[in-house]
Amino acid sequence: MASTDPQESPEDLPKVLLLKKPPSFQFFEGESFTSTKFQYLKAYESPLPLHQFLAAHAQSVQAVLASGGASINADILQLLPAVRVVVTTSAGLNQIDIPECRRRGIAIANAGDVYSADVADLAVGLLIDVLRKISASDRYVRQGLWATKGDYPLGAKLSGKRAGIVGLGRIGYEVAKRLEAFGCYISYNSRKKKPNVSYPFYQNVSELAANCDALIICCGLTKQTFHMINKEVLSALGKKGVIVNIGRGAIIDEKEMVRCLVAGEIAGAGLDVFENEPDVPKEFFTMENVVLSPHTAVFTPESLKDLSELVVGNLEAFFSNKPLLSEYMDE
Amino acid sequence: MASTDPQESPEDLPKVLLLKKPPSFQFFEGESFTSTKFQYLKAYESPLPLHQFLAAHAQSVQAVLASGGASINADILQLLPAVRVVVTTSAGLNQIDIPECRRRGIAIANAGDVYSADVADLAVGLLIDVLRKISASDRYVRQGLWATKGDYPLGAKLSGKRAGIVGLGRIGYEVAKRLEAFGCYISYNSRKKKPNVSYPFYQNVSELAANCDALIICCGLTKQTFHMINKEVLSALGKKGVIVNIGRGAIIDEKEMVRCLVAGEIAGAGLDVFENEPDVPKEFFTMENVVLSPHTAVFTPESLKDLSELVVGNLEAFFSNKPLLSEYMDE
Repeated sequence: MASTDPQESPEDLPKVLLLKKPPSFQFFEGESFTSTKFQYLKAYESPLPLHQFLAAHAQSVQAVLASGGASINADILQLLPAVRVVVTTSAGLNQIDIPECRRRGIAIANAGDVYSADVADLAVGLLIDVLRKISASDRYVRQGLWATKGDYPLGAKLSGKRAGIVGLGRIGYEVAKRLEAFGCYISYNSRKKKPNVSYPFYQNVSELAANCDALIICCGLTKQTFHMINKEVLSALGKKGVIVNIGRGAIIDEKEMVRCLVAGEIAGAGLDVFENEPDVPKEFFTMENVVLSPHTAVFTPESLKDLSELVVGNLEAFFSNKPLLSEYMDE
Repeated sequence: MASTDPQESPEDLPKVLLLKKPPSFQFFEGESFTSTKFQYLKAYESPLPLHQFLAAHAQSVQAVLASGGASINADILQLLPAVRVVVTTSAGLNQIDIPECRRRGIAIANAGDVYSADVADLAVGLLIDVLRKISASDRYVRQGLWATKGDYPLGAKLSGKRAGIVGLGRIGYEVAKRLEAFGCYISYNSRKKKPNVSYPFYQNVSELAANCDALIICCGLTKQTFHMINKEVLSALGKKGVIVNIGRGAIIDEKEMVRCLVAGEIAGAGLDVFENEPDVPKEFFTMENVVLSPHTAVFTPESLKDLSELVVGNLEAFFSNKPLLSEYMDE
């Protein structure tokens, strides 16, 4: 079928479909994520409506590169019968209909361990910040208030505190490793108890919350984890407890968390993710006990370079009939 | 000698002189730092001029409790011939004329290890913040700019970076221990190479700066360390390097650091201390690559409770002719 898409390359390289421009592309366009072994087919640059665009390429697209913002659901997959692999630029896979991929025999490769260190670094940074009031006192100093109004209120100690990790995957493990060096006592909640892990395990996330000073959300977003951090869990965390979220916004019932923060039912929050990004509840903007990060946990130039190599490596492996570098297996 | 000071207790408890109110007292007044074995003699609450006040108590004051802001110099000590111990609420001793104390046979006890964990926690927090732009992006989100202007510029990775510790005392060691858990490579500068420490040692601080990505100032302020971080050291650190200071402001040539930050000759700074606190150079207020903390590294309620116990314990030990709990020995 002849294509009228002006973006299509005259070369006969295999095509990798992009529905939306991945956030990571903007930092490297033209320099990274490129290969001599495939070409990108950018739906977002075509003037055609999406279903027409997909229909035009239905037989030729065997690979999709998906990012966090572009849903790969059953409707999309139905229009792309030749697809055999979905590679993502994200560590989380909540935008992908995994059962439908499995049914169609489509392999999935995610960003693997590329982001883990960066995400864990930011999680610890947010935790120190919310406990020790770094961003809040930085605002205070910048407004010239230190000289005129005196000392800023004390923060709370991190060293020796009890940290509860929700989701002890790669990221959760990296967070735990770092916090151990601060003398923190680690415990965790996960779908099941991990073999070969000595940290205390709590089957129930409320029980974990009741037995820690800081709850750090490191799990992925699934039907099971949607609003898992609800009123009961926040109550269990209590008025001296703080929460850090570097997972996905919708793991926390955000309205309930806002209410708890306003009412002083929890002490503070360090948040890299929100339910309706980039929209952030306006109540947060004037709170001194929250730290707001614009979903930057995964992004540093160093990790994006690693991501570029992994994405290209996965796609080249697919087109060469070699094993994927970071294939996602169901647990 | 009869005293007319209305603050003097009718009890016959030994007296501990306070020249200024220690910053730590404001958080606990009436609850902590108290003892049944001594009483405080508060010069700052007396209407008398200081020299008259000291003259009135010259024969009875055997102990002084000193804080960071109150200088214990030769002039003061000359007016207090009965003093045999100076206990400080600070870890640093730059406000105390140590040679003069030695000459007069006055023992010194400092805050020992009480603050080390808190200071190290904040040092790491400032480092993550300046690299990952936490405070700067928090301001961005609070201003509603994420939704209207899009993603915030990328920060830089911490994990795997080279961290240079200036002053590997208790605090420096605690910083190093934490940063090792982030996969950082540690090296250090100190007056002399430490036995039993495997981190690479640099005799020269410029050489350390040239061989690290982040320079973390953990030493005390002495004649030798005053403006030790000068133009040469900052140039060696370079335009991708960041600096964190939780020591004392005057260890850095602040004017030169401001110039380097404005000119992009270093990448950023996380500062808990300044040369003329609480006055902070106004140039900092609008810089996005600095994090400004109002000298809060040492203060959390938890560490202040420990401090109270240590200060009271030192003074009670002195009045009971027992060994001081945290006597400062010259190195």
